[in-house]
Amino acid sequence: MFSFQELSTVFAERFGNRHFPTQPASLYDPAGYFLGLGGKRIRPLLCLMGNELFGPIEEDAWQMATAIELFHNFTLIHDDIMDKAPLRRGQKTVHERYGISTAILSGDVMMVVGYEYISRVQSPHIRRILHLFNQTAMQVCEGQQLDMDFESREQVTMDEYLHMIELKTSVLLAASLQIGCMLGGAGLNNQQTLYRLGRNLGLAFQIQDDYLDCYGDAAKFGKQVGGDIVAGKKTFLLVKTLELATAAQRAEIRRLQQAPAAEKIGGMLQLYHACGVDVWVKQLKEQYRTAAYQSLDDVAVVSSRKDALRQLIDYLLQREF
Amino acid sequence: MFSFQELSTVFAERFGNRHFPTQPASLYDPAGYFLGLGGKRIRPLLCLMGNELFGPIEEDAWQMATAIELFHNFTLIHDDIMDKAPLRRGQKTVHERYGISTAILSGDVMMVVGYEYISRVQSPHIRRILHLFNQTAMQVCEGQQLDMDFESREQVTMDEYLHMIELKTSVLLAASLQIGCMLGGAGLNNQQTLYRLGRNLGLAFQIQDDYLDCYGDAAKFGKQVGGDIVAGKKTFLLVKTLELATAAQRAEIRRLQQAPAAEKIGGMLQLYHACGVDVWVKQLKEQYRTAAYQSLDDVAVVSSRKDALRQLIDYLLQREF
Repeated sequence: MFSFQELSTVFAERFGNRHFPTQPASLYDPAGYFLGLGGKRIRPLLCLMGNELFGPIEEDAWQMATAIELFHNFTLIHDDIMDKAPLRRGQKTVHERYGISTAILSGDVMMVVGYEYISRVQSPHIRRILHLFNQTAMQVCEGQQLDMDFESREQVTMDEYLHMIELKTSVLLAASLQIGCMLGGAGLNNQQTLYRLGRNLGLAFQIQDDYLDCYGDAAKFGKQVGGDIVAGKKTFLLVKTLELATAAQRAEIRRLQQAPAAEKIGGMLQLYHACGVDVWVKQLKEQYRTAAYQSLDDVAVVSSRKDALRQLIDYLLQREF
Repeated sequence: MFSFQELSTVFAERFGNRHFPTQPASLYDPAGYFLGLGGKRIRPLLCLMGNELFGPIEEDAWQMATAIELFHNFTLIHDDIMDKAPLRRGQKTVHERYGISTAILSGDVMMVVGYEYISRVQSPHIRRILHLFNQTAMQVCEGQQLDMDFESREQVTMDEYLHMIELKTSVLLAASLQIGCMLGGAGLNNQQTLYRLGRNLGLAFQIQDDYLDCYGDAAKFGKQVGGDIVAGKKTFLLVKTLELATAAQRAEIRRLQQAPAAEKIGGMLQLYHACGVDVWVKQLKEQYRTAAYQSLDDVAVVSSRKDALRQLIDYLLQREF
């Protein structure tokens, strides 16, 4: 069996091969450029590990891992257009470098190439896998739409926000695990347990991400602390604070929206603390993190087979708090 | 067997059913709005007729017909963004009505829902069908990218232009027929013959479209004559004229680019005539039209089974010349 690190290396090598025809270069070079920006490749690793919990990794699982990572990158290219993001991993986004039209189209074609990998799946479960993949892809689109909708709404409940994050982030992690374990031969109970694991992992990770943006060590974290606050982005912290804030605190939030960046960050952090949201958010992450490990315990295979997946969860969720 | 008109009515009724969940309405209403604008639904009809040439229409063919029409509409939504088109069938385009971000996303989700219909295909050929569908979808993206690339190039050869139109328009018609006839049980020879038919039909139709934009009866055609000329759009006529033009005629074309609309239309039509392109383009259409009927003749089934498909070709290619 592969360790997390080994599998990560092997997948990166396979995924580094060319996925697109050479011509027209004006379409496929931008797609290749974006994949070249790298990434943690978490979703395909979950697919492969889901498989390996139950048996040797099937060729089908490699196809699905690739399809999933291509789908994920397609969503990033299109999300970057919608979010007007100039940079991704320190490099220009596709629309910034090649224009919006080419970014739309190279995202589209990347999704299609993802489906082309699915067409190579030999498993008799191909219809169920395609269905789960499609259902998940629809949910990811729904999550992105809700995220945009929420940006222009003053108040969003925590339930609504959690649901949005689940759609936008968690379901793809969950489906990656489920597809992998289906291909490995898991029964329905184990499939559902691993789907839950992915869901909790995704939520814990996103909560941690929001926390680190406020309280992370800038040097270790690799980006400026308070970026979400400056951008006025809805996060777990802001949504919860808006739920708890008094009328006076709400007025202060509105005032801070117009304030200079440094004052805005300082002021919002004070408010988070005053509302107890800095403590609450750590507890919330802990809750989903614990649930993820619990699901891992619940998978009905011998514990030693779970090492790689445990390492991956450790890696994702034990970032510096 | 269905006539062209009957099948058209039956498909329109089935396709009129809802394809999307209700929530989030901000994502799915724009997708439903666009489908509500209507269309000739040629591609799904080709799929169904391809099936019916060889046997009763299979449930799988209805699924694929729906998938193909959803895919086609997804490309239209995204193309409209890239072309900055304000109107489609006299109504606002999705990006014009709902914004670019929602147009990108509702197009994305429409493509995914198309693949969801494919996941319902029960045929043992599902992998081959998915592969052909994906290959075609990639080609359609390539065609759109080449179309955009060509707009900013001064000279495009007729071979390049034909190849672009083939990718952008013909291959989806061809694949629709092939997928349909595969599901009807056609052998490889008949599949290839019908693919050729679709390719020729698509080219003839596009050539006719370009012709009618210049020489059509405005009242019958339903839009202003010379629209492509005013927009400076590359068409079969312009590309051929640029190939044939003398240096003096080239200079005249450059001068006309800056001229008022009426002068531009009049001037370009004179040039088309001077270069013999008005006659050439009719012959070119006739050549592909004849090839399409020839392919229909070549399909190895009794002639009476071909009536519906013959009616469809008649309908598409015998528009007022």
